[in-house]
Amino acid sequence: MRGAVIHAPGDVRFETLDDPKILHPTDAIIRTAVTCVCGSDLWPWRGVEPVDEPHPMGHEYVGFVEEVGSGVTAVAPGQFVVGSFATSDNTCANCENGFQSSCLNREFMSTCQADYVRIPNAQGSLVATDGVPGEDLWPSLLAVSDVMGTGWWAADAAEVGPGSTAVVVGDGAVGLCGVIAARAMGAERIIAMSRHEPRQELAREFGATDVVTERGDEGVRRIKELTGGIGADSVLECVGTDESMRQALHSARPGGNVGFVGVPHGVAVDGQELFFSHAGLRGGPAPVRRYLPDLIRLVQSGRIDPGRVFDLTLPLDQVAEGYKAMDERRAIKTLLTP
Amino acid sequence: MRGAVIHAPGDVRFETLDDPKILHPTDAIIRTAVTCVCGSDLWPWRGVEPVDEPHPMGHEYVGFVEEVGSGVTAVAPGQFVVGSFATSDNTCANCENGFQSSCLNREFMSTCQADYVRIPNAQGSLVATDGVPGEDLWPSLLAVSDVMGTGWWAADAAEVGPGSTAVVVGDGAVGLCGVIAARAMGAERIIAMSRHEPRQELAREFGATDVVTERGDEGVRRIKELTGGIGADSVLECVGTDESMRQALHSARPGGNVGFVGVPHGVAVDGQELFFSHAGLRGGPAPVRRYLPDLIRLVQSGRIDPGRVFDLTLPLDQVAEGYKAMDERRAIKTLLTP
Repeated sequence: MRGAVIHAPGDVRFETLDDPKILHPTDAIIRTAVTCVCGSDLWPWRGVEPVDEPHPMGHEYVGFVEEVGSGVTAVAPGQFVVGSFATSDNTCANCENGFQSSCLNREFMSTCQADYVRIPNAQGSLVATDGVPGEDLWPSLLAVSDVMGTGWWAADAAEVGPGSTAVVVGDGAVGLCGVIAARAMGAERIIAMSRHEPRQELAREFGATDVVTERGDEGVRRIKELTGGIGADSVLECVGTDESMRQALHSARPGGNVGFVGVPHGVAVDGQELFFSHAGLRGGPAPVRRYLPDLIRLVQSGRIDPGRVFDLTLPLDQVAEGYKAMDERRAIKTLLTP
Repeated sequence: MRGAVIHAPGDVRFETLDDPKILHPTDAIIRTAVTCVCGSDLWPWRGVEPVDEPHPMGHEYVGFVEEVGSGVTAVAPGQFVVGSFATSDNTCANCENGFQSSCLNREFMSTCQADYVRIPNAQGSLVATDGVPGEDLWPSLLAVSDVMGTGWWAADAAEVGPGSTAVVVGDGAVGLCGVIAARAMGAERIIAMSRHEPRQELAREFGATDVVTERGDEGVRRIKELTGGIGADSVLECVGTDESMRQALHSARPGGNVGFVGVPHGVAVDGQELFFSHAGLRGGPAPVRRYLPDLIRLVQSGRIDPGRVFDLTLPLDQVAEGYKAMDERRAIKTLLTP
């Protein structure tokens, strides 16, 4: 089979690789329907994360079950399945608490930009769709495996509720999915912080009621203006930098909540700043598995269409161009078709 | 009247001061029944916080209303009242959200180690007890104005619930009150982290089921051992140092919550550490006003007795000795009687 391998920052190649095999009874092999490039894939591409040796890339996937190990009964060959970027047994104490992305047997996916993928913990991780969905739904189901699940988690961690005011920091795919989630959870006012017109437009179509283009202190001032002087009930921090985290913290009202879902890079939260903000802060890898059944249903019933965050589609063998387009902000997110 | 004034680190004097006067229609003057020294008073005493010029000290108080401004109708002269260290109008948006310690008109108390005290925002801040309580209840009611209210907030912010496991980091007066709160909120297991035998004993009497004496990585290892390997549902961080914050964060299970209530000194929370802990974090000055009616009732009905954290009682004119005894850990908390 063929798949993407990163050799160095800026150097992703499409190569012939060994076909994946069942290694453990709880494994499954899927044939990739569609896959994509994640904003977090840009960290090694940009050299922010080191690339010590060549390794495969990709952690988002939907596809058809090809083969299952002897311990897998939850899904069967031929089914169309969605999983999470973090696999989980779905039986350990952390899974039972709904934090499957901290599963005691967690394995992060990392080989999904390929024709076939081995899924560890398949029994606990994969959820089959209702029948084989039409190709038009594949992008949205793919989004569920990471960015939509993560946007949902951001809103959940920020405790978005009916009638509340939510701020979304970050207009990448996760931030845009955060807008979808905030709307689905009943937020009355959704303020998207974005400077890029096409993204502002998509945010509005997804349910944003206001757009703030300012950043830093000026951005906070605008948020306060829009929220009766006190800040927002919920803030979804969907970037992961020190600047975005401060922006988020200062945009929340006392007693409000910040959900932060981008893996933080160079972030240090000052204790007194957090203390006097009076805001709650919760982050971490999204427990996508918890949300999968609901999110798949929302997609298949047509209630949400997060697949619209893909604004560039390339054949899988042009994966390198997919990275490049996102790095240069020519694309929000690249869909790859095997 | 007479009151405590700090002139420099280690130099608290008992001096003759002007009697406080009603300055605003929302003020009240109370005659101090009892007051005390707070752990946070030790920051300037120890020079950790600068003392730029001499200023009065003390923010915990219960007493008899002497006089009220024309805008105060909630309490009347002669009543015994309890307030919070942070005064609040109890009508602004933050107050309505239950975060009175972030009141838009907040004024922190700072002159309470004295015979008489002016209470700003008296209308929104003071709560009268049911009749004049016996002197035996004064220490517990005094504790409600700060350490008990703060311990309650720690447990509330850490989302302690029936049947849960709670860890209390810090065995000072707030930590000990945190144990009381965790028990009152139904925690099944309460693990007190303490190295000091008399404090361990009091923690057990207040409801701690386990005591862990280890700190740092070893302390975390012990907590994990006691919590099925995953960590505690709720952690009450009642110290405010970088070490205690890390201890707290690593003691919480994924999806658990840390309530941090000691004003942080030198604390920087690493973004990735917080992210992968999967714990929620909320802190800030305790919204004591929100809890006052319930806590006063719990004290007057004899259900909680946080006044037991006072293990040294001195006449107010020996206030300096009260600081010294706490600084040298000869006392958990010093009660001062005018």
